[in-house]
Amino acid sequence: MRPKIYLFGDSITEESFGDGGWGASLAHHFSRTVDVVLRGYSGYNTRWPLKVLERVFPGGGVEGGEEEPPLAVTIFFGANDACLPDRCSAFQHVPLDEYKQNLLSIVSFLKKRWPSTHILLITPPPIDEDGRLRFPYIDNPLNQPERTNKAAGAYSEACISVARESGIPVIDLWTKMQQFPDWEKAFLRDGLHLCPRGNRVVFDEVVLKLKGEGLSLETLPVDLPLIADIDTKDPLKAFQM
Amino acid sequence: MRPKIYLFGDSITEESFGDGGWGASLAHHFSRTVDVVLRGYSGYNTRWPLKVLERVFPGGGVEGGEEEPPLAVTIFFGANDACLPDRCSAFQHVPLDEYKQNLLSIVSFLKKRWPSTHILLITPPPIDEDGRLRFPYIDNPLNQPERTNKAAGAYSEACISVARESGIPVIDLWTKMQQFPDWEKAFLRDGLHLCPRGNRVVFDEVVLKLKGEGLSLETLPVDLPLIADIDTKDPLKAFQM
Repeated sequence: MRPKIYLFGDSITEESFGDGGWGASLAHHFSRTVDVVLRGYSGYNTRWPLKVLERVFPGGGVEGGEEEPPLAVTIFFGANDACLPDRCSAFQHVPLDEYKQNLLSIVSFLKKRWPSTHILLITPPPIDEDGRLRFPYIDNPLNQPERTNKAAGAYSEACISVARESGIPVIDLWTKMQQFPDWEKAFLRDGLHLCPRGNRVVFDEVVLKLKGEGLSLETLPVDLPLIADIDTKDPLKAFQM
Repeated sequence: MRPKIYLFGDSITEESFGDGGWGASLAHHFSRTVDVVLRGYSGYNTRWPLKVLERVFPGGGVEGGEEEPPLAVTIFFGANDACLPDRCSAFQHVPLDEYKQNLLSIVSFLKKRWPSTHILLITPPPIDEDGRLRFPYIDNPLNQPERTNKAAGAYSEACISVARESGIPVIDLWTKMQQFPDWEKAFLRDGLHLCPRGNRVVFDEVVLKLKGEGLSLETLPVDLPLIADIDTKDPLKAFQM
């Protein structure tokens, strides 16, 4: 059986198989080695999936059809938790302390279920408030951004502290992206979601972190012989397995 | 557990999660309903994977970690079988009769393993011989195309007859693509592999055929509540399950 990497998160994960998406790029990168499994839930904060983690990651032993532990799980939440509590997307808001506790609980659930699985946290991206005003998701009578970059930064900090406390790697996307000039328009399509160049940043960072965990094309076994390794004079020899 | 659709085939399947690829587009389309699982093997004809079908689709009951039958499997081989036996890629060639028998055997294996699974055949695409001369994969001292459109057409016919004999649907990609003007350059990047517009044709056809089999966004259950179905005044109500 080919091993799996789960991508668990909100809309930035759910739409990661769109054109130029970081999820599709990962699946392409690992096309002969790993199944990249999409578990993105658009609009979700950390509070909601915490109620149904058993449904997202079914376990229950062999009778329940339990599979091999995945190689890795990416956890990519916070962009919705960080919606401001007094703006138009307040129903998605989760207070900073609760966000941190929820993330800790998700990490702890996965560590308990699959002790050998590499867990990789990803902070929310920075927010381009101008973009958020120009591309509202819902009615915004106040005409004020429902997300701010400052709030996203605070949630990003909390995510990093969860990684530190849990001893797991983290991609500090909030900081990373802001190191590039014109990050607001270069990486973000609507002030929050990624355009192809933004997706590329996430893809590159995930590949790098996975490599840091020992998971790379150099180390993972290939599923069936590569065409370059097949003897053109006796191709079937490669399939005597 | 989310149901699966397997994509089984050669390089046109293996690279289907690249930019604009039909596999990634399927995964995106079904992002909350189905896991699209990549089983593409670059360079493979039908003869080689037939030797290792048990490895591609492991079974073996609950002890072997057997999962629910997949919703569907696409089988997309023939482009390599149709390499001419007297040209530079002869080692990939499989005679027409054997190709047909091999496809029948693959279909029969899947039908036996998973009687309820929808099997969908896809014929090889048409060949742009000019493209094949301009983008050789290996040394081509004769400077003659290793694949011809005529040969691809014969293998496509055989694939269609396998579908008819097996009572399963087929996408006649060879015919379909040639109905468009400039198909040679509009759909094919190197005379064989798909460019984004060619990928779009395959994606559209697969979605259409799956719908014909009753598998569509309208009929498949969604994994966890959609954001649009969550009560903004009491979001957690949607997660009491």
